Amino acid sequence: MFHESFADCWRLRYGTEPPCDVPELAPFLRHRSVREFSDQRIGEPLLQALIAAAQSASTSSNLQLWSVVSVDDPAVREDFAELAGNQRQVVQAARFLVFCADHHRLRKAGQKVGEACAGLEYAEFGLMAFVDAALAAERLVCAAESVGLAACYIGAVRNDLPRACELLGLPEGVAPLFGLCLGYPHPACKAEVKPRLDQAAVWHRERYDQDMDVSAYDERMRGFYISQGMKGEVTWSMRSARRVDGKHMTGREGLKAFLEKLGFWRR
Amino acid sequence: MFHESFADCWRLRYGTEPPCDVPELAPFLRHRSVREFSDQRIGEPLLQALIAAAQSASTSSNLQLWSVVSVDDPAVREDFAELAGNQRQVVQAARFLVFCADHHRLRKAGQKVGEACAGLEYAEFGLMAFVDAALAAERLVCAAESVGLAACYIGAVRNDLPRACELLGLPEGVAPLFGLCLGYPHPACKAEVKPRLDQAAVWHRERYDQDMDVSAYDERMRGFYISQGMKGEVTWSMRSARRVDGKHMTGREGLKAFLEKLGFWRR
Repeated sequence: MFHESFADCWRLRYGTEPPCDVPELAPFLRHRSVREFSDQRIGEPLLQALIAAAQSASTSSNLQLWSVVSVDDPAVREDFAELAGNQRQVVQAARFLVFCADHHRLRKAGQKVGEACAGLEYAEFGLMAFVDAALAAERLVCAAESVGLAACYIGAVRNDLPRACELLGLPEGVAPLFGLCLGYPHPACKAEVKPRLDQAAVWHRERYDQDMDVSAYDERMRGFYISQGMKGEVTWSMRSARRVDGKHMTGREGLKAFLEKLGFWRR
Repeated sequence: MFHESFADCWRLRYGTEPPCDVPELAPFLRHRSVREFSDQRIGEPLLQALIAAAQSASTSSNLQLWSVVSVDDPAVREDFAELAGNQRQVVQAARFLVFCADHHRLRKAGQKVGEACAGLEYAEFGLMAFVDAALAAERLVCAAESVGLAACYIGAVRNDLPRACELLGLPEGVAPLFGLCLGYPHPACKAEVKPRLDQAAVWHRERYDQDMDVSAYDERMRGFYISQGMKGEVTWSMRSARRVDGKHMTGREGLKAFLEKLGFWRR
């Protein structure tokens, strides 16, 4: 459904001409978050194959400190949609997955062999679980996109983590990190490739360059916001800085305390 | 260089026969960490294209809270290899990248428009940065593997975060999370597709199943360890539980305090 060439994707991302002589990486540049899905389902064998892709991602020391819960029950989907600020794609997507940091499984396996796994309380093993889960999810998304599916991450499952845990029946040691909607894009879906920061602002050579400049990107995003029908004169800097002013936490100010309660990041 | 079919990959991952009628997702199941690279370089245009793939990953609210530093300087590569427990692939790989959580760029952009970005101190925006960085890295790895490259994550850059920050000249608000070796696999490279936990232990339907059983995986991994020439009778549970006993922290017990010092996860 999405067919931009590598050069098209590059121009959409950066507003410049692409480098010459690059291999055909368009499928990996074409990603956009899709929020309108067709009615086409995702059958069990395909989902099994996608989970296998997720599990094929790197995982630190092969500890596999993550889990995923697939939610098909329409009523629970409704609960998650509401929890996430009424994002309808959570209900409409062919599949909805919740990726979790998981210390429970290893702790239980450890207990069986007489190990207390006390180190899991260190921040290090929290970070490891967060990274493991994200690597798995993104490999799954890349695999899904390669067969015509589209995805949308739902960070807003963190708006109410206690409720999310309850909905999924999670034990101590398992924390939902983000949801993932999966499905075939609706034919009328208008999701576009979004401009990104210039490479020079994100990619540093040898040493971090503190003098990176985002003003060109600010202008590109101003144009993008207008093209999306957003009102008002706003730049990426203004919009993003407001997002992190501490007054728009959408229920997530308690994340630190709640993760500690679950056993993560205690020391 | 690696050419296992989907069915082969499935058998290697799970020790069972794959489901029928699944699309050709083999490229995403074939991943292994490669630590022996050929001398073939990765030119600038290809690396630019790979960075574009990384930037094409989802990023929460388009905040793009990550950065990457590419290290070509052989002396600095030596420093990183040593810091990471003398992992030689850090020196030998065609490219070495360090992925970082980055609050600095947005904070600076915010200051220019009169926003203090005080919310970045919340754990929520630490987690967002960790996830953003991991999604970007894994999309880059998937793209790289699609053109014959191979990769190896280096979590051991966290063995000495202050030193890693110093080597990269990182300002406050930027934390190295993991390194990534990239290159073409050496023809003699023996890296194998590693068995993973049964899907039933990782993938839960509707609600988390606390009764998952890892004993079959323990036996598969015992066989895998023996095939890799590892001595002693050991299972995945034993080996993994020992890794998280709190006595094998390889310098990472200070992660929480150091990230707080950099401005992450303070409240």
